[in-house]
Amino acid sequence: MSQLDKIGTYPFVAEPFHVDFTGHLTIGVLGNQLLNAAGFHSHDRGFGIDRLNQEQHTWVLSRLALEMTDLPMQYEPYTIETWVENVYRLFTDRNFAVLNKDGKPVAYGRSVWAMINTETRKPVDLMAIHNGDIAGYICDKECPIEKPSRIKVSSQEPVAVLPVKYSDMDINGHVNSIRYIEHILDLFPLDTFKEKRVKRFEMAYVAETMAMDTMAYYIDKVDDNNFDVEVRKNQAEVVCRSKVIFDKLN
Amino acid sequence: MSQLDKIGTYPFVAEPFHVDFTGHLTIGVLGNQLLNAAGFHSHDRGFGIDRLNQEQHTWVLSRLALEMTDLPMQYEPYTIETWVENVYRLFTDRNFAVLNKDGKPVAYGRSVWAMINTETRKPVDLMAIHNGDIAGYICDKECPIEKPSRIKVSSQEPVAVLPVKYSDMDINGHVNSIRYIEHILDLFPLDTFKEKRVKRFEMAYVAETMAMDTMAYYIDKVDDNNFDVEVRKNQAEVVCRSKVIFDKLN
Repeated sequence: MSQLDKIGTYPFVAEPFHVDFTGHLTIGVLGNQLLNAAGFHSHDRGFGIDRLNQEQHTWVLSRLALEMTDLPMQYEPYTIETWVENVYRLFTDRNFAVLNKDGKPVAYGRSVWAMINTETRKPVDLMAIHNGDIAGYICDKECPIEKPSRIKVSSQEPVAVLPVKYSDMDINGHVNSIRYIEHILDLFPLDTFKEKRVKRFEMAYVAETMAMDTMAYYIDKVDDNNFDVEVRKNQAEVVCRSKVIFDKLN
Repeated sequence: MSQLDKIGTYPFVAEPFHVDFTGHLTIGVLGNQLLNAAGFHSHDRGFGIDRLNQEQHTWVLSRLALEMTDLPMQYEPYTIETWVENVYRLFTDRNFAVLNKDGKPVAYGRSVWAMINTETRKPVDLMAIHNGDIAGYICDKECPIEKPSRIKVSSQEPVAVLPVKYSDMDINGHVNSIRYIEHILDLFPLDTFKEKRVKRFEMAYVAETMAMDTMAYYIDKVDDNNFDVEVRKNQAEVVCRSKVIFDKLN
């Protein structure tokens, strides 16, 4: 198999409702399209949710780290490349590159996935699925950003406590992975996004938030441009952690 | 010009993050895709935003009415058809049909648009643009739903007062048209969407909400399944009105 077969390449366009007030693609939409690209890539290689579901398995996103320079503007086409970097027994690393309309990389992403049994909700040995075929897709294309970090938040005073609303929920009745990204960015004052852009964004998904829960948001400010965020359901159990690193706009 | 040339047909897929907890496409995403289809259709006929902007003109969505039966489920492909029903001096009526994977209509939409001068922000005479070419696209395909109604809300007690957040805003620095749809549906208790589905949804866009404004939501309950909603910025000026009609799930 050539390296080219291992890398999936998918075209997108920055739609009018996919950009923020600076005209750039939002990180929430970018995250959504990365997950779409991951879905297309794994589907085409026999590891799509549709086939896995028939075998009582599904993918669970555990971590996501993104670094961005100049995201596409409204109406601009862009391309997402995705490939498998590593396969361990219980996790696989999938990377992403986002190319702008001129083919120049403007963002990279790293993600970590587990596979679970849909009945027991327990992790599955990836090497036991389809004779370990997934290892055949490992590709050594470079992804020049740091791996997801360990995030710790010590704050005990929530900056926001949000009820779970209809638009937050996915087909499984959980708060959807992309909505957390939007809610976390919405914790910062609007003026922040006039003066700065997000340079790096990390998410670690720990547990699910259900309809009856509330989402409490806690922030540790590391420095003026570096924030650690934790979401705790019902102000107790951690559901996800995030790191947001800003860069001053020129 | 044949009727076929007048109708634009665009394919979409219900992505995982485009469906609600019942597995159906959300009305917010449907609205987004209808506006995308409108953009493609007008672009291909010389009335796209890109060309209009060069001439200091732009389209403004004034009203939207949707009726739905059985919206597409996660991963299902669907098709949006759109066409121009009428052109008046200051408004044009654009209709939509949504066809499911089997080609069966599962939703219809009606929309009303004005064109404005981007400098004066005043309405433009549509017949004075490109020699009135737009009238050549009028098409008599049937759209079997009622026109947008006149909505009046008398409540003076807001059910929610929301600040404008980063994720609410569009490239013009206004609250985006789709976010209102999501915020309005989020006013209803989650259980509503377990027992009922939205049968008809209307939006009338009146004014713009900016970053410094708050959005106050007022509801008049017409009956158990029929609600009129008004959004007033800073609890004073009306920015949009909506009607939500539910139907019991079987």
